[in-house]
Amino acid sequence: MSRLVTLTTDFGPTGPFVAVMHGVILSRAPELRIVDLTHDILVHWPAEAGFWLSRAFRYFPAGSVHVAVVDPGVGTGRDIIAVEHAGHVFLAPDNGLLGQLLEQAADAPVYRLDPDWQARQDWPAPSHTFHGRDIFAPLAADIASGRCRPADIGPRVSEVVPSLLEPPSVSGRELKGSIVSVDHFGNLISNIDAGLLEGFREPRVQAAGHSLPLKQTYGQVRPGDCLALINSFAVVEIACAEGSAAERLGLGRGAPVSIVEGRYV
Amino acid sequence: MSRLVTLTTDFGPTGPFVAVMHGVILSRAPELRIVDLTHDILVHWPAEAGFWLSRAFRYFPAGSVHVAVVDPGVGTGRDIIAVEHAGHVFLAPDNGLLGQLLEQAADAPVYRLDPDWQARQDWPAPSHTFHGRDIFAPLAADIASGRCRPADIGPRVSEVVPSLLEPPSVSGRELKGSIVSVDHFGNLISNIDAGLLEGFREPRVQAAGHSLPLKQTYGQVRPGDCLALINSFAVVEIACAEGSAAERLGLGRGAPVSIVEGRYV
Amino acid sequence: MSRLVTLTTDFGPTGPFVAVMHGVILSRAPELRIVDLTHDILVHWPAEAGFWLSRAFRYFPAGSVHVAVVDPGVGTGRDIIAVEHAGHVFLAPDNGLLGQLLEQAADAPVYRLDPDWQARQDWPAPSHTFHGRDIFAPLAADIASGRCRPADIGPRVSEVVPSLLEPPSVSGRELKGSIVSVDHFGNLISNIDAGLLEGFREPRVQAAGHSLPLKQTYGQVRPGDCLALINSFAVVEIACAEGSAAERLGLGRGAPVSIVEGRYV
Repeated sequence: MSRLVTLTTDFGPTGPFVAVMHGVILSRAPELRIVDLTHDILVHWPAEAGFWLSRAFRYFPAGSVHVAVVDPGVGTGRDIIAVEHAGHVFLAPDNGLLGQLLEQAADAPVYRLDPDWQARQDWPAPSHTFHGRDIFAPLAADIASGRCRPADIGPRVSEVVPSLLEPPSVSGRELKGSIVSVDHFGNLISNIDAGLLEGFREPRVQAAGHSLPLKQTYGQVRPGDCLALINSFAVVEIACAEGSAAERLGLGRGAPVSIVEGRYV
Repeated sequence: MSRLVTLTTDFGPTGPFVAVMHGVILSRAPELRIVDLTHDILVHWPAEAGFWLSRAFRYFPAGSVHVAVVDPGVGTGRDIIAVEHAGHVFLAPDNGLLGQLLEQAADAPVYRLDPDWQARQDWPAPSHTFHGRDIFAPLAADIASGRCRPADIGPRVSEVVPSLLEPPSVSGRELKGSIVSVDHFGNLISNIDAGLLEGFREPRVQAAGHSLPLKQTYGQVRPGDCLALINSFAVVEIACAEGSAAERLGLGRGAPVSIVEGRYV
Repeated sequence: MSRLVTLTTDFGPTGPFVAVMHGVILSRAPELRIVDLTHDILVHWPAEAGFWLSRAFRYFPAGSVHVAVVDPGVGTGRDIIAVEHAGHVFLAPDNGLLGQLLEQAADAPVYRLDPDWQARQDWPAPSHTFHGRDIFAPLAADIASGRCRPADIGPRVSEVVPSLLEPPSVSGRELKGSIVSVDHFGNLISNIDAGLLEGFREPRVQAAGHSLPLKQTYGQVRPGDCLALINSFAVVEIACAEGSAAERLGLGRGAPVSIVEGRYV
């Protein structure tokens, strides 16, 4: 076990919501390390959390437990699932959050938390509105510290709620995807994996009526000019050198983006 | 000792102010764990910090030392106090910040930092404007690492500055309280403890001209509709399903909220 | 070694960019402690990062490794340098970021990362756009854990890119500097060191047409009034008691500020 837990939520910086998750984890397993992946996910949009988890987990030690709580259905009947993949464990509500990870890892075992098993743990009775603290935190602590394994928490399931964000698709000669995150610099980050561009000779990236060439890094255009590139997480990104592509192009999360063959433009 | 320190401030994300508190603590006691409770307290409003501390501390291991620095009077004559309660230690300026904790814990011993004792410690001379780094951080490190106890730092006192936020009060058939925090989702969090609602058969929550029923979780009304509930910290909260109650109702910290008997409305 | 690493960037709270730096460091050296100095540096302005590093590093244990990534030139030909000073190690792009530190420490040895040495390490091939994760994080982990020393990474150099922010200068009877940071309270923090004021009998601080007296702490003027003071990092700061000097005076980073002799005003 790496004894490391990461936390991803849409809780923002306000209030002690993230901190009490740390407190619950460290109360149960003081030896664990906790890294905040990000708490700035777009509120109530699991797709962004699942995208980043699926792209970032490999930078943590094998054996890490990754908790993601973007959970508009908290306190309703939605399930909680655990996925094992590449030596890592992922915990999230079954609301499509882990859909992008499972697209990469179709054979990864998925377990659904059994309420009867949960009721037998020495956890406090959960509130109706904060399962991050009351269920996810003790579950992550117990898995990361070796007290239980994903296979212990409930039955293996074959059906989960798919991602609310459709995966990239091909339509004629066009590859269509979506902006899934916007970073602090205003770079527009899509869900189009670099591997999907292999069939293109001179790919051009189209968004909001602009057609952008694919470059290697931000410094390859003049300040203020926009470009596209394969970013450090191996997806297509739209950027403006020394500026914000989100502001310049008026785009944000969910916006369509497509790849076309430059020879035909 | 849990060897855990939490930090609560109104310093925000800017500059190295929080980080140098970590640095000072870890320089004195490298074995300690530090959790940032929140640094997004409304600037210069100790009431919000004290509210969250009083509601969140139980999720940390007994023996934790909780430091809260919302301190508009830094460098003037205000005192620094330490409170012991339920196996935890709380350090704050004597400006009402710990008033809500002391309302729950009337018998908790309170100690006032003695400037002569302070002068005998091996701490650097304090600046006039950053006691978080120069006094609170070394004091927290020394208590959390077992080098001293609250009773060592100065005389036990019986009078402290009361909270600037009045506790909930009853006026006729109405229970009156205040909004004390607003979370990242725009949920309006009051200082009205669930226990105060015991005498009500059909409590309704009134704020900004709206009268809201008490539900169990966010999913129990239609998207966009507002509701009230007892939240996961056992206080009355006003929320809008899949929306921001703060924006919808135009309310924020300090706004009045009241509970009435629904049968009489 | 203190086994402590600090991180300073302009990445903000969005996405997993800071977190994967933690992940890479902890994957290589699980025993290290990591403190986030700040990630709220003005985007693409190394001067603010370098200012805070030069003022804050002394509050961390000797032996700490301080990584600063404000790096608009990432992926172009700019170098990466390591500076040793006062028992601490500093890693940054050679873009002027460490200029203010080197003004304090003219004899500090500076080493330039040799691409051949880098290619011999067991690090993954770097991306074009995220050297924080791919170069700075493994380098910091290896230095902080004792696996290598700054002198190992490449040749000692005597020339580095100077800070983009000019150091304070004297013009006639006026001492001229700049606002280099603005804190969460709206306090305007200059690059004018307290030591530079020694020749003044009654220094007055001038900015945006205002002339402010030098006080000791915020409480020494009436709420809303502005003042200047030597802050807790020993530089001249302009503040408004219980208000934001940045809003009141309409000033921000880069704005000129000067000191004059009050007797002649």
